[in-house]
Amino acid sequence: MIRVGIFGVTGYAGYELARWLQRHPSASVVWAVSESSAGKRLAQVVPGPLDMPLLAANQVDWQAVDLIFTGLPHGVAAQTVAEARKHGVKAIDLSADLRLDNPAAYTRWYDHTHPHPELLNAPYGLPELNRAALVDVPAIANPGCYPTSVLLGLAPLLEQGWWQTGQTIIINAASGVSGAGRAPKQHLHFVEAHENYSPYNIGHTHRHVGEIEQELSKLANAPVNTIFAPHLLPTQRGILSTIYVPIQPELDLVSIHALYRQRYAAEPFVNVLDQGQLASLAHVVHTNDCAIGLTLAQPGMLIVTAAIDNLLKGASGQAIQNMNIMFGLPETTGLR
Amino acid sequence: MIRVGIFGVTGYAGYELARWLQRHPSASVVWAVSESSAGKRLAQVVPGPLDMPLLAANQVDWQAVDLIFTGLPHGVAAQTVAEARKHGVKAIDLSADLRLDNPAAYTRWYDHTHPHPELLNAPYGLPELNRAALVDVPAIANPGCYPTSVLLGLAPLLEQGWWQTGQTIIINAASGVSGAGRAPKQHLHFVEAHENYSPYNIGHTHRHVGEIEQELSKLANAPVNTIFAPHLLPTQRGILSTIYVPIQPELDLVSIHALYRQRYAAEPFVNVLDQGQLASLAHVVHTNDCAIGLTLAQPGMLIVTAAIDNLLKGASGQAIQNMNIMFGLPETTGLR
Amino acid sequence: MIRVGIFGVTGYAGYELARWLQRHPSASVVWAVSESSAGKRLAQVVPGPLDMPLLAANQVDWQAVDLIFTGLPHGVAAQTVAEARKHGVKAIDLSADLRLDNPAAYTRWYDHTHPHPELLNAPYGLPELNRAALVDVPAIANPGCYPTSVLLGLAPLLEQGWWQTGQTIIINAASGVSGAGRAPKQHLHFVEAHENYSPYNIGHTHRHVGEIEQELSKLANAPVNTIFAPHLLPTQRGILSTIYVPIQPELDLVSIHALYRQRYAAEPFVNVLDQGQLASLAHVVHTNDCAIGLTLAQPGMLIVTAAIDNLLKGASGQAIQNMNIMFGLPETTGLR
Amino acid sequence: MIRVGIFGVTGYAGYELARWLQRHPSASVVWAVSESSAGKRLAQVVPGPLDMPLLAANQVDWQAVDLIFTGLPHGVAAQTVAEARKHGVKAIDLSADLRLDNPAAYTRWYDHTHPHPELLNAPYGLPELNRAALVDVPAIANPGCYPTSVLLGLAPLLEQGWWQTGQTIIINAASGVSGAGRAPKQHLHFVEAHENYSPYNIGHTHRHVGEIEQELSKLANAPVNTIFAPHLLPTQRGILSTIYVPIQPELDLVSIHALYRQRYAAEPFVNVLDQGQLASLAHVVHTNDCAIGLTLAQPGMLIVTAAIDNLLKGASGQAIQNMNIMFGLPETTGLR
Repeated sequence: MIRVGIFGVTGYAGYELARWLQRHPSASVVWAVSESSAGKRLAQVVPGPLDMPLLAANQVDWQAVDLIFTGLPHGVAAQTVAEARKHGVKAIDLSADLRLDNPAAYTRWYDHTHPHPELLNAPYGLPELNRAALVDVPAIANPGCYPTSVLLGLAPLLEQGWWQTGQTIIINAASGVSGAGRAPKQHLHFVEAHENYSPYNIGHTHRHVGEIEQELSKLANAPVNTIFAPHLLPTQRGILSTIYVPIQPELDLVSIHALYRQRYAAEPFVNVLDQGQLASLAHVVHTNDCAIGLTLAQPGMLIVTAAIDNLLKGASGQAIQNMNIMFGLPETTGLR
Repeated sequence: MIRVGIFGVTGYAGYELARWLQRHPSASVVWAVSESSAGKRLAQVVPGPLDMPLLAANQVDWQAVDLIFTGLPHGVAAQTVAEARKHGVKAIDLSADLRLDNPAAYTRWYDHTHPHPELLNAPYGLPELNRAALVDVPAIANPGCYPTSVLLGLAPLLEQGWWQTGQTIIINAASGVSGAGRAPKQHLHFVEAHENYSPYNIGHTHRHVGEIEQELSKLANAPVNTIFAPHLLPTQRGILSTIYVPIQPELDLVSIHALYRQRYAAEPFVNVLDQGQLASLAHVVHTNDCAIGLTLAQPGMLIVTAAIDNLLKGASGQAIQNMNIMFGLPETTGLR
Repeated sequence: MIRVGIFGVTGYAGYELARWLQRHPSASVVWAVSESSAGKRLAQVVPGPLDMPLLAANQVDWQAVDLIFTGLPHGVAAQTVAEARKHGVKAIDLSADLRLDNPAAYTRWYDHTHPHPELLNAPYGLPELNRAALVDVPAIANPGCYPTSVLLGLAPLLEQGWWQTGQTIIINAASGVSGAGRAPKQHLHFVEAHENYSPYNIGHTHRHVGEIEQELSKLANAPVNTIFAPHLLPTQRGILSTIYVPIQPELDLVSIHALYRQRYAAEPFVNVLDQGQLASLAHVVHTNDCAIGLTLAQPGMLIVTAAIDNLLKGASGQAIQNMNIMFGLPETTGLR
Repeated sequence: MIRVGIFGVTGYAGYELARWLQRHPSASVVWAVSESSAGKRLAQVVPGPLDMPLLAANQVDWQAVDLIFTGLPHGVAAQTVAEARKHGVKAIDLSADLRLDNPAAYTRWYDHTHPHPELLNAPYGLPELNRAALVDVPAIANPGCYPTSVLLGLAPLLEQGWWQTGQTIIINAASGVSGAGRAPKQHLHFVEAHENYSPYNIGHTHRHVGEIEQELSKLANAPVNTIFAPHLLPTQRGILSTIYVPIQPELDLVSIHALYRQRYAAEPFVNVLDQGQLASLAHVVHTNDCAIGLTLAQPGMLIVTAAIDNLLKGASGQAIQNMNIMFGLPETTGLR
């Protein structure tokens, strides 16, 4: 039994993690931290089926756990992971703190110096791309929600070299409101977000761009330029990325579809839809799946639709998948 | 042309007021106050079709207006109305500050002494019950949203003496989220309110109970006891009150329906639905109407369904209706 | 391993059943019937994570299963259960066909003669009230969604005799749209149901009234009269019943709360909330729980708020709970 | 007073038209047709504030009207317009029947021969592009909802020749559910559309592509190639098009923003947002406005966000705007 501690359990990702771990046959939540609600019980803070005491960070018993999950703001997350490492506790970090490869990129996107640059060598925990690197490691960088959808949607094409090298890939992405976090803000007020749909940080300004281009470039073995345009959807959860990829003009849909089916044949959480089907949120919400649809819009232009649940495959589900790999369990344990 | 000033224009009621006044042929918004956003323009603060400069309260030109609307928290509202009266400016107050008849009741429900008890003699602005008292007065208490639906739903029955005197009337009410105001709060976060439906302040604890029972008792000419149970709906706007009224057991639905139709025959904003129809939000949102449905559940028990748009007939639309009466205009001006 | 067949798998309850059975460690779906989509695969008909072939009713292999679940219209359901019995296959029926105790009541509420009145002796599968009667039986009547919330919300009070015998209990209930079924209808169109909230069949006309009063009367050991007023909520799922119960005037909330806590102390799926908390959909959606809140509105008048997920505790979750009991498994198997 | 007849008044566009015409000071609805509900009254068919008798098409009095609006399926619409012309009645057609310039294009996109090709010379009623051609004409083709957002979003750039001629423009568009019509269908069921977001007809297959490319090519005075990818949003109304346009690489945002501001300076219904602001549904729902935001994603790549209310500027509001022009009224009459 893996003994687990959760930091940030009252956030949406932390809560979802606690919920799915409750059903996990080989892991058990020993304690949970909520700095803002320490001393209360979870059921008092979040109406729902879960209940447990909430600790402050300085109250935790490091000896009692084998692994922590950190659902914390960047900066704080790295410090908590570093603390865990001192105690010999493994960590899976749901923030961005371990994702970028070099400190300069981190400073560019997050506006401050990385507090523990030595942690940046943690492997990037997207199992479908990087499984071997995750076994038995001390720490894993859990990928961002948008990047997960984009990377799974593009990997076969880029690995195969079938895209038009050097041309810009346009990513029109949309996310449910839980992706923006649980802290109340004006634009997340029910009345403002409901019956609305709004772009934000479009162009080259969203923090996920650094992560997306870093990982896409590894897949392509060449620099990849993207335009990334996120939008806020009036849903609780779910991400759909509609990706416009310039490809070799002679490629037909049958070949591309076959490539994707083959690439993901052994993947339990990637669902390449039948030809003609398009991915939607309904395919994936409340699952750890990524659904992928493929459309040849015109010769040389492929549209990939890639959907995930931002709280599961985009955060907590993938974190559990990473835990399973880290500890040598079957990868789907507790995720069906 | 009535020259209008609005206090609290960035709130939901204030904004709706500004929007409907824009189309009003005989009134014009001269200035608008937003204490929290003074110095900005409205379009910077609220994405939408309106734009105008936002003033601080101490910047306004009292000479430039004939009338103010106050969409402010209780306490502050009374002080602003008092200030307007000093300058000879009329006022329609959308807060609760002018609604109760005596200062003790105010203190009981609002936890502080009324700053200007002399204002409590302002008439209660529910035109369908109280029209004559509203002409040419200096100030009007604009009714609460829940009370409007309840009073219009019950008036014919209580005036006629057809209810079972002394028995408790149960009011199960539900409101869209805009009724809770624009300030961001945890339970108003999109993710918490969406796909949710939650009772709050049920029993005898919601502040509207004082107002409801005060006005119902006037209609009945006897004390009226209610159970009031409000619920938060996952909609932007709309109120439906489902009211369970013990009535004389010999009454049939035909007579009751005829009574309501006759009582409201001349009312432009009350729509007594056909027998068998039930009121819903769809009947009224984006209108100043109150829709009323009548069901005889069993002998002696009538169920009234009464729906309004909480921002219109429950706030800003009714405020304009009151303005029209106050200034001698046709009552429907600018409201169709 | 219990070998299961599902009738009506493309309906909302049938699909949810298939989804939860997928994670059940001791049951396995052998085949699934969809009369309207026979010959297709499930993933073609319902976008989502599940896939399996869809059979016509006359194609099924009765030898291959130990148990069927019937998510079918009334009338057809009874015929299917009767067919299962002929083959020695057990049945849990999610329709209303097995719920009423006598054929006359069935005819009154469902407008046709019961095709198999001998099936009406199947026990009523609300485990918290009736557990012992469900073990090893050939067929179980799975309760209706509204009745489940009402019965669990009232059982302790009625069993204890603390309500005011003979007085009417008012049930103001609200359900998400999945409760109305999957067939497209005008009032279930997204544009009509969204931003709406509408009462329907209020008074004494909803078919669940017969079931509710039959079972309440057993609990109270006396006839119980109710007013039942259901409303359609703009949510996918969830039921909240707000129940107004006349009680003995000397009872205080502490005693009542203690009674409920004690009555349900051993129940894994009933969550009596802390004093002062009210039940909401957020407490229960995507769980098999019933959350109960208790408010003493005034002396002699208790308000019970009882929430369930209509597709789980109100249908498929409860059906699995019943299966577990029927086959001697731990009751929570596959439901956490 | 313009005497108006409406065909298809129970559809979403027809109803919205009737609602806004109710407030129009110089137009009046004389009769309204609903083939499917003839003989009933509007309030029986659509819960809401409007009521009027519903006629069958063969019951109308052509002498009583000056103008008809046709909110009908393609094919039927053209026949109705032709009938109106025979009676000397003007027509504004909200279907696609008058929009394409040549019969062959119509056949390609609508799969049948145009029943009245002589009607295809009706002018395309997008006043901001084509105002002069609309005065006093017998019939106007009211533009499609998606095309309206795209054309207004791109016109200044294409007219000015600032785009990269020959390169593909990518249009990622999203529409509220009312855009799909009022007939109940599985994917429009509340439960299927809520908490969902789904692409459909992406690539080059949506019928609006013909209209979009035809009109863009006129603006650019050159063939324009687009990729059009529409998505269904879980909202009642609103369209946002996020448009990716390759432009001359030396252009900066200041110049482009100035161009748009100047181009639309005199337009009452086009709102070019401040630099840095992005268009969202909240800017436009329940108005006849088009809001436009401009972002330079990287040198040579402009992202235009263009939002409209699909039922107003995308249908009925624009139809009234066209009526105003057709009859020589001030263009904003009845639309503020």
